[in-house]
Amino acid sequence: MESLEPAEARRRFRAGLKAPTAAWCPGYTQANLVALPREQAFDFMLFAQRNPKPCPVLDVTDPGDPATGMAPDADLRTDLPAYRVWEHGQCVAETADVSRYWRDDLVAFLIGCSFTFDRALAAAGVPVRHVEQGRNVPMFVTGQMCRPAGIFSGPLVVTMRPVPPDRVAAAVAVTARYPAVHGAPVHVGRPSVLGIADLGRPDFGDPVRAEDGDVPVFWACGVTPQVALTRARPPFAITHAPGYMFITDVTDGAFAI
Amino acid sequence: MESLEPAEARRRFRAGLKAPTAAWCPGYTQANLVALPREQAFDFMLFAQRNPKPCPVLDVTDPGDPATGMAPDADLRTDLPAYRVWEHGQCVAETADVSRYWRDDLVAFLIGCSFTFDRALAAAGVPVRHVEQGRNVPMFVTGQMCRPAGIFSGPLVVTMRPVPPDRVAAAVAVTARYPAVHGAPVHVGRPSVLGIADLGRPDFGDPVRAEDGDVPVFWACGVTPQVALTRARPPFAITHAPGYMFITDVTDGAFAI
Repeated sequence: MESLEPAEARRRFRAGLKAPTAAWCPGYTQANLVALPREQAFDFMLFAQRNPKPCPVLDVTDPGDPATGMAPDADLRTDLPAYRVWEHGQCVAETADVSRYWRDDLVAFLIGCSFTFDRALAAAGVPVRHVEQGRNVPMFVTGQMCRPAGIFSGPLVVTMRPVPPDRVAAAVAVTARYPAVHGAPVHVGRPSVLGIADLGRPDFGDPVRAEDGDVPVFWACGVTPQVALTRARPPFAITHAPGYMFITDVTDGAFAI
Repeated sequence: MESLEPAEARRRFRAGLKAPTAAWCPGYTQANLVALPREQAFDFMLFAQRNPKPCPVLDVTDPGDPATGMAPDADLRTDLPAYRVWEHGQCVAETADVSRYWRDDLVAFLIGCSFTFDRALAAAGVPVRHVEQGRNVPMFVTGQMCRPAGIFSGPLVVTMRPVPPDRVAAAVAVTARYPAVHGAPVHVGRPSVLGIADLGRPDFGDPVRAEDGDVPVFWACGVTPQVALTRARPPFAITHAPGYMFITDVTDGAFAI
């Protein structure tokens, strides 16, 4: 099932299949979804513009339009396996189809995801510990605040990957080539400087076992805009359900520079 | 005068000095200014998001706020040497101070400029012909359309620099490191493919003399959003006057990756 073409995967989700997308369609870019009324979309786009490392916007739709150039035959209202619907910061529904919630003023943001990233690291010979250990990547809320924009504000959230000292330079070089999906690390080596007390207790995701001598390397994380969204409590929003992403027709390679 | 600190240059412009900024404050990033009411600013930000190579947004202000983090002591209403004020696509004033035109709903965009670029090329040993010849860079309207967004649409505009064949790779590599100021070339070598009939007759700027064997190399150009603005005829806009840019406190090096 993992080696399906993206269009076939989306067709199955549209038909009702609910499955996390982690191992699906390797090599094709998956994206986070955030849809907001135009009024709040302006602030959100500004927040993303001011915080591009944690909020790498891959596409923004026209108000009301559920289509994206990243998958021309797709319908963003039906083609993700699961969605969450939000009112004033409360999740009011989790559903496989948001057609009946869609509005003419909704602007959908597709935001880059670290899957793109992990594959590039592995391909460059950097061991990706959480993948090796079959876990979700550990994520930490830092003490560093994002630049606010309108109703949106909040801390920078980072992912952490333990990297052997002789592969840190490669990890930096490889990920710097992907500015559209978080880019180079924001920090290498000193969790306390980021306000992180215990690497064994992530705020999201799973703890990961470091090998002897591994250096903790931190990248900006796409959970940052989700935290900002939760804090802002906009009147209405639709997002993907965590882990149930939008699979695009665009290959990961398209984001390398 | 050219080696002034940016704050001193801005102070002189604020005091009334009118001078093109081309050779001013070398090493400090200069930016194009476009200020629009919030309503049209949404569409403009979307246009820039969809066309990042010709429209590299460096900063966006909060509605009504004339301040930017790129020069914390600056006032965007007074610190450029010359502005143009637009109503429905017509230039209704050219002035050194737009304080009396400013509105509470104006959102200012600071957009990257190719000066950053030309200095990086020269530093990498790529001859920059138009600078050597004391001319403005030649710019061409192409047959390639930008992705539209709301009221904004229009053709891609490119700059052309003739590059010796053995320096084309260096020119690509160097400019690819500056994605925030147009990045790598969009095209190398065949003007006709872009719909350009005669390199000797640019649509903007000056013709430039190529040396024997030079290959024409084309980069996305910041005139693209200006053309889109002219076509869209928004009810109100303020821009810098051509050549009279905003000098920031940020060094060119800050945009290299």
